[in-house]
Amino acid sequence: MAGTSLRRRRSGGHSGKALRQGGAVIEQMPWRIPRNTDRPTEPLTEEGVAAIHDGAMRILEEIGIEFLNDEAVAILKQAGCTVDGHTVRMGRDFVMEMLAKAPSSFAITPRNPDRRVTIGDGHMLFINVSSPPNYWDLHSGKVPGTRAQCRDLLKLTQYFNCIHIAGGYPVEPVDVHPSVRHLDVLFDKLTLTDKVAHAYSLGRERVEDVMEMVRIAGGLSHDEFEAAPRMYTNINSTSPLKHDIPMLDGWMRCVRRGQAVVVTPFTLAGAMAPVTMAGAVAQSLAEALCAIALAQYIRPGAPCVLGTFTSNVDMKSGAPAFGTPEYMRATQMTGQMARFYGLPLRASGSCAANVPDGQAMWETSNALWSAVQAGAHMVYHAAGWLEGGLIASPEKFIMDCEMLQQIQRYFDPALVATTPDDIALEAIREVGSDGHFFGCAHTQERYATAFYQPFLSDWRNYESWSLDGASWTVERAHRVFKEIVNGFEAPPMEEDIREELEAFVERRKAEGGAPTDF
Amino acid sequence: MAGTSLRRRRSGGHSGKALRQGGAVIEQMPWRIPRNTDRPTEPLTEEGVAAIHDGAMRILEEIGIEFLNDEAVAILKQAGCTVDGHTVRMGRDFVMEMLAKAPSSFAITPRNPDRRVTIGDGHMLFINVSSPPNYWDLHSGKVPGTRAQCRDLLKLTQYFNCIHIAGGYPVEPVDVHPSVRHLDVLFDKLTLTDKVAHAYSLGRERVEDVMEMVRIAGGLSHDEFEAAPRMYTNINSTSPLKHDIPMLDGWMRCVRRGQAVVVTPFTLAGAMAPVTMAGAVAQSLAEALCAIALAQYIRPGAPCVLGTFTSNVDMKSGAPAFGTPEYMRATQMTGQMARFYGLPLRASGSCAANVPDGQAMWETSNALWSAVQAGAHMVYHAAGWLEGGLIASPEKFIMDCEMLQQIQRYFDPALVATTPDDIALEAIREVGSDGHFFGCAHTQERYATAFYQPFLSDWRNYESWSLDGASWTVERAHRVFKEIVNGFEAPPMEEDIREELEAFVERRKAEGGAPTDF
Repeated sequence: MAGTSLRRRRSGGHSGKALRQGGAVIEQMPWRIPRNTDRPTEPLTEEGVAAIHDGAMRILEEIGIEFLNDEAVAILKQAGCTVDGHTVRMGRDFVMEMLAKAPSSFAITPRNPDRRVTIGDGHMLFINVSSPPNYWDLHSGKVPGTRAQCRDLLKLTQYFNCIHIAGGYPVEPVDVHPSVRHLDVLFDKLTLTDKVAHAYSLGRERVEDVMEMVRIAGGLSHDEFEAAPRMYTNINSTSPLKHDIPMLDGWMRCVRRGQAVVVTPFTLAGAMAPVTMAGAVAQSLAEALCAIALAQYIRPGAPCVLGTFTSNVDMKSGAPAFGTPEYMRATQMTGQMARFYGLPLRASGSCAANVPDGQAMWETSNALWSAVQAGAHMVYHAAGWLEGGLIASPEKFIMDCEMLQQIQRYFDPALVATTPDDIALEAIREVGSDGHFFGCAHTQERYATAFYQPFLSDWRNYESWSLDGASWTVERAHRVFKEIVNGFEAPPMEEDIREELEAFVERRKAEGGAPTDF
Repeated sequence: MAGTSLRRRRSGGHSGKALRQGGAVIEQMPWRIPRNTDRPTEPLTEEGVAAIHDGAMRILEEIGIEFLNDEAVAILKQAGCTVDGHTVRMGRDFVMEMLAKAPSSFAITPRNPDRRVTIGDGHMLFINVSSPPNYWDLHSGKVPGTRAQCRDLLKLTQYFNCIHIAGGYPVEPVDVHPSVRHLDVLFDKLTLTDKVAHAYSLGRERVEDVMEMVRIAGGLSHDEFEAAPRMYTNINSTSPLKHDIPMLDGWMRCVRRGQAVVVTPFTLAGAMAPVTMAGAVAQSLAEALCAIALAQYIRPGAPCVLGTFTSNVDMKSGAPAFGTPEYMRATQMTGQMARFYGLPLRASGSCAANVPDGQAMWETSNALWSAVQAGAHMVYHAAGWLEGGLIASPEKFIMDCEMLQQIQRYFDPALVATTPDDIALEAIREVGSDGHFFGCAHTQERYATAFYQPFLSDWRNYESWSLDGASWTVERAHRVFKEIVNGFEAPPMEEDIREELEAFVERRKAEGGAPTDF
């Protein structure tokens, strides 16, 4: 086949603009939000759904959740919940009444409105790895994260069209002081990417600063910023059964200003949750739903997402495991429950592997396919995560993007179309039993777009591959990483907006940034 | 947790016997046939199923299939099909009447009746890689296959409880002359394994010799051998639209003697089949269903399996691609059609990667999960395949078995159970918001079997893993391979049976084995 002309043809059309903007290092798929057309995998019977719901409700009614944030406790008390110190118990009627106010889908619009995403409604959004304190690449090995590495990973986040949201810090830049880290990273994120941004709920100043920076980057008035979601936060409960002060503070701040909120209990069965998966899921739901109930009480209709991060520990060592069979089933069960509650679902790509090897891929593939099967709408850590979240890796990021593009292509309705043109009876008749389909018109008219074209897989035979250096996947990924970063062009930003952002960062640094207690 | 005692406990019980028999190198799951409890992923609407069915039937009715085997043509003519030279056209009424005679499930019993497998009825069986002419391991690189390597891979086939059937030659021993190769490999297979065996349909002598050797190994009379399936063959059509002489010959021989038959068209969209996936599936079905119709006409109720191996080519190079999004959808669509026709389904594990790296794992994982989603009953090449089937690799075999065990565990109903014990409300109450689940009774009673325990994944943190040599998955797999092969103990075989097998091989070698035309 005419490979060269095929490549040329592909870099035109929809993908042309994106490629030119980002530097056409690889032939990637265009920006598009995949829709999950599969019927979800539902391991629970109707009785199973009822049993887990009842378990979650009884946890909230009988055992209660510890809300360490006094303001949240006061609000829930006012709402009629039973308060005992910091322990809040809420009846299922209240919870279900609040959940009924939550939208089943909503949009978030970043500074580039073309990057607007809808959360829910069958969409499936992929988000970069977030929050690892360490970095690994093929040359450096494992090292503490730096701002330079964080910038590189933000460039990958922007470059890949299959990454739809710029989530948390793709690696923690531990060379930047925590008091001003959010200012530097958000400046980098808002200038290097134009996708939806995120604020860590780690104290009032950080959340407020990020909201202000997102507002400035979008060229928005305060009213415009608050009129519809422009960004989001993600909080984790402190399992078992606890929500801490700053997370709830950030949660409530975002809710009040109309921004989106995701709550993701990190419930490792056998450690912070029961050893049985249904128990771990029930506890996770209880921890998440009470936060969503709080949000809906504060602002009915607040855009909320139910997150799942239920996995298991290694019973030999206590180490967390990811992408396991148990993890897959927990994700699918939580998907069923999210549909029961009418809430959008967040899941994750994840693995326990220390390097981007075979184990990393089967664990991540398991995690990603369970997100598909669960009908997850947001997939955190979809690219770049290693060592149970302790390492961010650019090679892993690139390898994961190859898998994400395949999932996106998997959802293309063309693959399962059954029109007469697809059944191709006349082509089959024309070729007969002695011919070949390469040459027939039916093939010639379709070959350029008929199949998924990987950017990282090497489909050459062993000998060609060997003559060309016999590169293993991780080595090819390293080269792609370097090429993307070296050729990266940031998305456009108006000069006055950039200056306003710079001035904000400078002022807030002069004021000392966010307080730190160490 | 008490890791050591946990390991000891696990090697007792069900798995104990298998471990002692095979040498307890690793802690693997016990022999068990997984049941696929998931609702299949069905990308086709009812109209889509009807459209593909109609396409397949029109291929058979209007275009016809070339049957190069004169005997098969004569039989089909007698059955009322329209014959024009070697081209056979058959009406949908005849095809559907014949398919209605085929069982939706059946058993095959090998020499060890404990290794009996049921094909169909929700079971999911995994089969070793079959037929690559080359071998790759971490030390040898790619080399032509030998009998010694073939024996090593047969040892892995026997050792792993997650491999249920000993399919074709796990690597072609090209150091054994083709005239006697089937005698040597079948002797090795029948002495090194006690699982269901397979005969290549590559000429009368080979099929008859293998049937005879399986009969001898099972200690069966001729009548006993023919009373129920003891082995099977797998044939491939010569796509497009052709069945060759020896494949049909072997097909009919096995059918007449009551053995199981699998027909698997190898339809690469864009090459031997239409570039559109529905067209490739329709053509594949036509090629398979006419062989099954022939089998049912010869022997109503013959145990038949519908195989799928529909993938796509790389449109740049023409190279076959595997585990692609298109491959996944074709597998799922064929699964829907298999249920429509009431036939058991064979799918495959596969990849285009040249070495067991990241690409190998994401492609194989895609292929295996699509087999799950399709409701496939037999999964060929489930362990050990590389380079589009041109390489068999022991490391890849071991890595794939880790994935297969996870799929097996994924189907364990315990993972999604929702009894009050699973919801664990009292444990959650007991631990409260300040405790930990490690210590509670609910965990202690269950931790030994609560979670899947991998034998190859390394879940230690980076530093522990690094201090212990920083082995990547493929290196760990190589070590496991060597340990298994070195410690291998063959399953028991009565001495007189072994002698009878040896005598048969000796006699057939003296007679010249099978004729070769080169």
